[in-house]
Amino acid sequence: MRVGVIGPRGTFSEVAARKWDSSCELSYFDEISDVVEAVLGCEVDFGVVPIENSIEGSVNITLDLLLEHSVRIVSEVVAPVVHNLLARKDAGRIHTIVSHPQALAQCRRFLRAHFRDVRLEGVQSTARAAKLASESRGIAAIASLEAASAHGLKVIFRGIQDVRGNFTRFVVLGCGTSHTDCAVCKTSLILHLKTNRAGALYELLGEFATRRIDLTRIESRPTKKALEDYLFYIDFKGSTEEEGVKSLLDSIGEYVDMLKVLGSYPAAERC
Amino acid sequence: MRVGVIGPRGTFSEVAARKWDSSCELSYFDEISDVVEAVLGCEVDFGVVPIENSIEGSVNITLDLLLEHSVRIVSEVVAPVVHNLLARKDAGRIHTIVSHPQALAQCRRFLRAHFRDVRLEGVQSTARAAKLASESRGIAAIASLEAASAHGLKVIFRGIQDVRGNFTRFVVLGCGTSHTDCAVCKTSLILHLKTNRAGALYELLGEFATRRIDLTRIESRPTKKALEDYLFYIDFKGSTEEEGVKSLLDSIGEYVDMLKVLGSYPAAERC
Repeated sequence: MRVGVIGPRGTFSEVAARKWDSSCELSYFDEISDVVEAVLGCEVDFGVVPIENSIEGSVNITLDLLLEHSVRIVSEVVAPVVHNLLARKDAGRIHTIVSHPQALAQCRRFLRAHFRDVRLEGVQSTARAAKLASESRGIAAIASLEAASAHGLKVIFRGIQDVRGNFTRFVVLGCGTSHTDCAVCKTSLILHLKTNRAGALYELLGEFATRRIDLTRIESRPTKKALEDYLFYIDFKGSTEEEGVKSLLDSIGEYVDMLKVLGSYPAAERC
Repeated sequence: MRVGVIGPRGTFSEVAARKWDSSCELSYFDEISDVVEAVLGCEVDFGVVPIENSIEGSVNITLDLLLEHSVRIVSEVVAPVVHNLLARKDAGRIHTIVSHPQALAQCRRFLRAHFRDVRLEGVQSTARAAKLASESRGIAAIASLEAASAHGLKVIFRGIQDVRGNFTRFVVLGCGTSHTDCAVCKTSLILHLKTNRAGALYELLGEFATRRIDLTRIESRPTKKALEDYLFYIDFKGSTEEEGVKSLLDSIGEYVDMLKVLGSYPAAERC
């Protein structure tokens, strides 16, 4: 089974993909959009992409790609994120620290306290940052311990993130139908309300509440057409095979002018 | 009146601050957190910071700072965003394009089509990117026309953002009380629900709906303590001086274990 992740070796996406299926064969891509395109083009069987981090919140590009493309969510994986400062053994004075912008943001206080005058540079992934640090002196990377061993780097500081309990939720994308044979299922939707009059969102949520369907997440994203015009991304417990969820999906047609069911899938175990 | 914005000269924050008060004296800071600290320390009378873009969505760092610090929102400003590719007249072949990560994201399709092999580098602001481009050959910046003239750069491509109708909403922060003498007022809250049982959010929104209070925005942010534990940022029409809003704020105490009123302020004119 071939699974696409953001590369190079040592990304958190790789860690998540191996947690989902330890025997999968990995293909590495530069960007999240490349992973999605590889799934759509059947270049890989599945793609594992980050969707939400417990500190930074949503990964907006993933939310936008789920709207634009006809991929389905077939599973989710939750993986812990531990950031470390890595550099070559002969790095010398550090003038630049590179990492994914979210990793830089997650280590904001550490960086302000210890590396106030150092240049910060955002790159596509923490693993790419580790690769860059392995290629030049004077450059340190914020990345995983897996990236340190993949690129032969020394760990200067361990666990430098500002807040403990840093987890990323990944979704596994596929083209086929969902797996709904799960002990606890979740379903993900994207919708746009017909009107933005007072109470429209309240009435929509009433359809969930009267069926005692448990929302695990509601996130808004701009429609990109105007300010204050939003799409809602809703995750809830239950699968589209259940009667209550079928009746929910029938009833919410009345409130929305766009509804996309991203899939039902086994809920990840909580860390 | 001194107003703090992200610098250097030519940022969209500067454009927004001048739209809010054309005669204000500007102080420039490196980061949004520095602007907030300057407001708290009374180094400036007000700070103008971006909070939401019609394409990229929330500016998470601003949302997080509003939670952490006791600043108040005293006004909002909506300003159009037009991105342009800028470089020195003698730039030669472009090997690197620098800009704020959101600006790079907003020009994603343009960059993939025309500059696929060029290195992209995120910096704190579009204006800082323009400054960098003015200092080196081979580097282009994505920034405003104001930044082009501030840093003496040539406009290579105009209006390169992927989607039209790109607006940023800024909030004006102060330490004092809100201005509630407005034709149309908005109020902003941050809250955390006591329970995450099914229907809790629905019941909370019922308090708005029964009073016919119009939500203009609901956004979730992680509490940073666990996955699937969220704060809600809610904007609605009305001011805390109005009886309906006073009664709303009394009643929602029942549903929340944290409530922060960020202020009531005049709603910006829609562009």
